[in-house]
Amino acid sequence: MRIDLPLLERRLDELYAIGAEPDGGAYRPLYGEAWAVACDRVEHWMREAELTVHRDAVGNVWGRLEGSRDAGGGKAVVTGSHIDTVRRGGRLDGALGIVAGLGAVQALEAEYGAPKRPLEVLVVCEEEGSRFNTNFWGSRAIVGAIQSGEADRWRDAAGVTLAQAMRERGLDPSHISAATRTDLDAFVELHIEQGSVLESADVPLGVVTTIAGGVHLQVTVIGRADHAGTTPMDLRLDALVGAAAMVEAIAHCAAVEGRPAVATVGKLRVEPDQINVVPGRVVFTVDLRHAELEACRNLTQGVRRVCETLATERGLGIEITTLHERPPVPMHADIRTGIEAAAAKEDVTAMALVSGAGHDAQILASRCRVGMLFVPSNDGRSHCPEEATDLADLELGTRVLARTLERLAY
Amino acid sequence: MRIDLPLLERRLDELYAIGAEPDGGAYRPLYGEAWAVACDRVEHWMREAELTVHRDAVGNVWGRLEGSRDAGGGKAVVTGSHIDTVRRGGRLDGALGIVAGLGAVQALEAEYGAPKRPLEVLVVCEEEGSRFNTNFWGSRAIVGAIQSGEADRWRDAAGVTLAQAMRERGLDPSHISAATRTDLDAFVELHIEQGSVLESADVPLGVVTTIAGGVHLQVTVIGRADHAGTTPMDLRLDALVGAAAMVEAIAHCAAVEGRPAVATVGKLRVEPDQINVVPGRVVFTVDLRHAELEACRNLTQGVRRVCETLATERGLGIEITTLHERPPVPMHADIRTGIEAAAAKEDVTAMALVSGAGHDAQILASRCRVGMLFVPSNDGRSHCPEEATDLADLELGTRVLARTLERLAY
Repeated sequence: MRIDLPLLERRLDELYAIGAEPDGGAYRPLYGEAWAVACDRVEHWMREAELTVHRDAVGNVWGRLEGSRDAGGGKAVVTGSHIDTVRRGGRLDGALGIVAGLGAVQALEAEYGAPKRPLEVLVVCEEEGSRFNTNFWGSRAIVGAIQSGEADRWRDAAGVTLAQAMRERGLDPSHISAATRTDLDAFVELHIEQGSVLESADVPLGVVTTIAGGVHLQVTVIGRADHAGTTPMDLRLDALVGAAAMVEAIAHCAAVEGRPAVATVGKLRVEPDQINVVPGRVVFTVDLRHAELEACRNLTQGVRRVCETLATERGLGIEITTLHERPPVPMHADIRTGIEAAAAKEDVTAMALVSGAGHDAQILASRCRVGMLFVPSNDGRSHCPEEATDLADLELGTRVLARTLERLAY
Repeated sequence: MRIDLPLLERRLDELYAIGAEPDGGAYRPLYGEAWAVACDRVEHWMREAELTVHRDAVGNVWGRLEGSRDAGGGKAVVTGSHIDTVRRGGRLDGALGIVAGLGAVQALEAEYGAPKRPLEVLVVCEEEGSRFNTNFWGSRAIVGAIQSGEADRWRDAAGVTLAQAMRERGLDPSHISAATRTDLDAFVELHIEQGSVLESADVPLGVVTTIAGGVHLQVTVIGRADHAGTTPMDLRLDALVGAAAMVEAIAHCAAVEGRPAVATVGKLRVEPDQINVVPGRVVFTVDLRHAELEACRNLTQGVRRVCETLATERGLGIEITTLHERPPVPMHADIRTGIEAAAAKEDVTAMALVSGAGHDAQILASRCRVGMLFVPSNDGRSHCPEEATDLADLELGTRVLARTLERLAY
């Protein structure tokens, strides 16, 4: 089976040029101009490949190769990824899954002709949550998980509602439910790892066992703002010194738990944030992830407990609220086995690993069998212009994706 | 000697009402409307007290009681404080030194008539630095320490230069040097402590030995921004976890050194400051103060060393720059002795303490003998609407101030 590597490279370059930002990277927010151009470009490639193209009610683009037999009740085998990006996003996040998915389907058809089951390439309209304060808009529409009124509720930084943004692209927010698909058999996505587990293990391919569950906490530490010159150290209630102890302890909780547990304090705000005032209040976020529900809950409990203890010891007040919580989603055993078998055919042992990042597969898992394969990210970099993967790894990933789809659809 | 306490209280209330903010506190930034009204009000009180009023080239207001003899070469004994405030400033910071100074001079004249030496009440136009990025504007003008071109350089948040702000109040920036005084003998200021050293020692009066020296550092910790879900704890270069260890260590440096050493991380900024991104860079400030030059330097060296060590241990980059540095300023022994003797006459032992906060006395020290007395701040609060001192302490402070001035001018 021949993977057209120059074509794959050219298509990645073309997509990366759409929404290019002056200081590097590309930005293609949901329903924006660059987003629309990118969707048109992929649709054009799909038509060149003689796929039947359909755009659904939220703007997901589907390119379909009909099955030759009514195998599996006509349920479709799907591959693809999201077309939107973060700000200054890289060349591969999302784009790779679309381009490699289309390349794999083209290679399969060239080699074996029509599949038994319908084989589809999916361009998910949104996954990153970089324009509105919600994400998985495309995959949630496919599984019917968008709540009534949501499109009117979410606004971008300019105050435009998601519903308005849809109308600007000719989409009717009252028809969102029409995007629901009940005829999906499997979804397989190739993605970059976005971390350095594969690279540091020197393995070119990973098979995802689980998409980690996660909790977002907001912690408010309450001390007392005092004059930095006149308040002796022993009479202070310094909210930042207390928060600093918590930041260290939180990282320690995840480190002692070991992989794949992670804990990150990503945002932190000091009040009043003046050079000569003892901080009276600090607000920070905690992002916790783990592969198993029980372990995720234990990690969360441990972090809450250590923060509360540190606050009490120092006479500080503390408030901890849960902003967001999602359980881990295991990948389907069939798909995982299929990926492993496909890799073995290419003489590669795929490394089993947990995805710390969220992906559309965790949403689609409620409607079909899902699985993911990862290729290494150089230096673990992602969500930045430095995002890159070796060409040989891109080819291997695309080839194993094709072999996995072959097992499912032929 | 009778201190008119109701008058003192009424004047403090009147000043506090000028520039009152909707959510409590008063704001009287240099050359603003509230500032001008407050200066007029004090000038009015000075004229009522039959002082000779003079406004200098930067808007300091001087009220003078002529000396009856040509004692000490006609050099003046001065008391007073600043009229400007921080945002949401309290009722006493600055205002007390003006109102008590005027009250003390009025009490002395009522009791003893004209002094031997000229006795002046000074309203310093600015000390807080709350409008422009510079401070001690009033006292620096008096000692001739304002550099040529400074008034054109400093801008407020709205972009107005200090020079423009002066012109709006009818002051000519090209005449600043005319504010210089070379005929000052002594400056004595009553101020609130703005900390809780006196309160925690249960002492109603403090005599300042030294105004602490200080250093402002800016520390930049450089790690690597990574995906919070996909980067295992052991592969991270988390700038915030590193900075947190430094924040704790910096507080520890000052705590083990003991009073009056203080170290404060007041401002801290995380980049990129996103809930799901490992912090790649943290920038924070350190405010260090101590009473002796050598100790201040040692503390600074200790803080630099511990930050550098922590960065190296964690594979993080670090840059430390000195933003600002000022040596400690000892109060003059004569004035200190005078305050102690005056306190003894009121059957009080004034507690010797270091001022962690900066005051105009540290500037005026280059031109005359200076000294300060402190009254307690309830709960150590200052620079906020909760700023308060017991009435008995205000009276005692004013009475000891008057006795100190008596020793110097009569």
